[in-house]
Amino acid sequence: MNKVSKNDFEFPSLSYPGFYISIEGIDGSGTTTHAKLVTEWLKNTLNESKVLLIQEPSNREIGQLIRVFLKRTGHHAEIDALLFAADRTEQFYSITLPHLMENYIVVSDRCKISSILYQSQQSLPQRWIEIINYHIPFPDLTIILDCTAETALKRKVKMSNNDSIKLEKFEKINFLKPLRQKYLDYAKKHGLPIISTENKTIEESQKEIQHIVEEKIKKWKR
Amino acid sequence: MNKVSKNDFEFPSLSYPGFYISIEGIDGSGTTTHAKLVTEWLKNTLNESKVLLIQEPSNREIGQLIRVFLKRTGHHAEIDALLFAADRTEQFYSITLPHLMENYIVVSDRCKISSILYQSQQSLPQRWIEIINYHIPFPDLTIILDCTAETALKRKVKMSNNDSIKLEKFEKINFLKPLRQKYLDYAKKHGLPIISTENKTIEESQKEIQHIVEEKIKKWKR
Repeated sequence: MNKVSKNDFEFPSLSYPGFYISIEGIDGSGTTTHAKLVTEWLKNTLNESKVLLIQEPSNREIGQLIRVFLKRTGHHAEIDALLFAADRTEQFYSITLPHLMENYIVVSDRCKISSILYQSQQSLPQRWIEIINYHIPFPDLTIILDCTAETALKRKVKMSNNDSIKLEKFEKINFLKPLRQKYLDYAKKHGLPIISTENKTIEESQKEIQHIVEEKIKKWKR
Repeated sequence: MNKVSKNDFEFPSLSYPGFYISIEGIDGSGTTTHAKLVTEWLKNTLNESKVLLIQEPSNREIGQLIRVFLKRTGHHAEIDALLFAADRTEQFYSITLPHLMENYIVVSDRCKISSILYQSQQSLPQRWIEIINYHIPFPDLTIILDCTAETALKRKVKMSNNDSIKLEKFEKINFLKPLRQKYLDYAKKHGLPIISTENKTIEESQKEIQHIVEEKIKKWKR
């Protein structure tokens, strides 16, 4: 746990008995699918009774506004970054932390790493994004899903045709390609596990995720 | 104008032909009333054709959400601070700056000084609030309205009885008293004019505001 130091914007001291997992990666890498599947597996196969699935942005008031803004183009990246941070703070202190205090395993589709990498890819200073999110902790376990930008975009276009979802501004090849590299660099720097979803079935990738989660859960339970 | 330095979070270089005024002070000091009156006076007496009145929080999407949140208690001050900064950014780059570029006088009921003083009064580090707002400039002229916390609260309670408005969480004597001192200290430190609204009619205070604005407008026009 980091030391309390409000002036340096270090994360304040916080401990909880629960376990906080996030599934991260570029749009189309499979974070939503795999966060859902690993939650079901924790409940049904590992027989964990206290498991909560959440997502970022949330389905709460600020999260809904973010989804409206994500369809727009031409406005300042600072607005996205500040709204994501507000939504994350609101959900963390209203939902995530109270569940972690009750010994829950909280599985999150994305965490503050998304803001750090997506918004710095929008030319914002990475340190600024870290500072506006300083009061929210990193998860106990983050798994990075990886695939090429081309594969990610093919999946999003397919979803978009099926459900008449308009593609968001982040879902462009020239945005996703360098973003993928940012994720790989970040994972390497911080020692986060990377699972490829490129040439595998969903079941195959999910098995690898379950393997990592099971090891960590065992250690957490000791 | 400050030097461009993204790493130090200094305000980026920006120039515009218009003039940006804000009326500041604790709740109940009269910012809304006087921002309106000075706008009308600029239009009707000084015959300025390009004058825009705005307020913070805005009447736009994020501002409306802030007004909902202000009625709630018990949530983290960081959420307010981030939403205020997001709303301010959105309004500044969508409305204020385009008008300033068109030679408008923009009169704002509050500016980022409200965030710096209100949210630091909620125990957030002042430097953090400055950083999350770093990409929005200070106005060209800020006038601080001043009255005692007791008078401010009497006015708010009166409004609340008339209009069945629920008092917001900031409208408490123990909050407003030290906040008033913060405004006075801030005005002194930054050389901002202070107009008392304590034992004067609205007309008397407004005359003093008009005097300051007229002097500054003359200089701006030269």
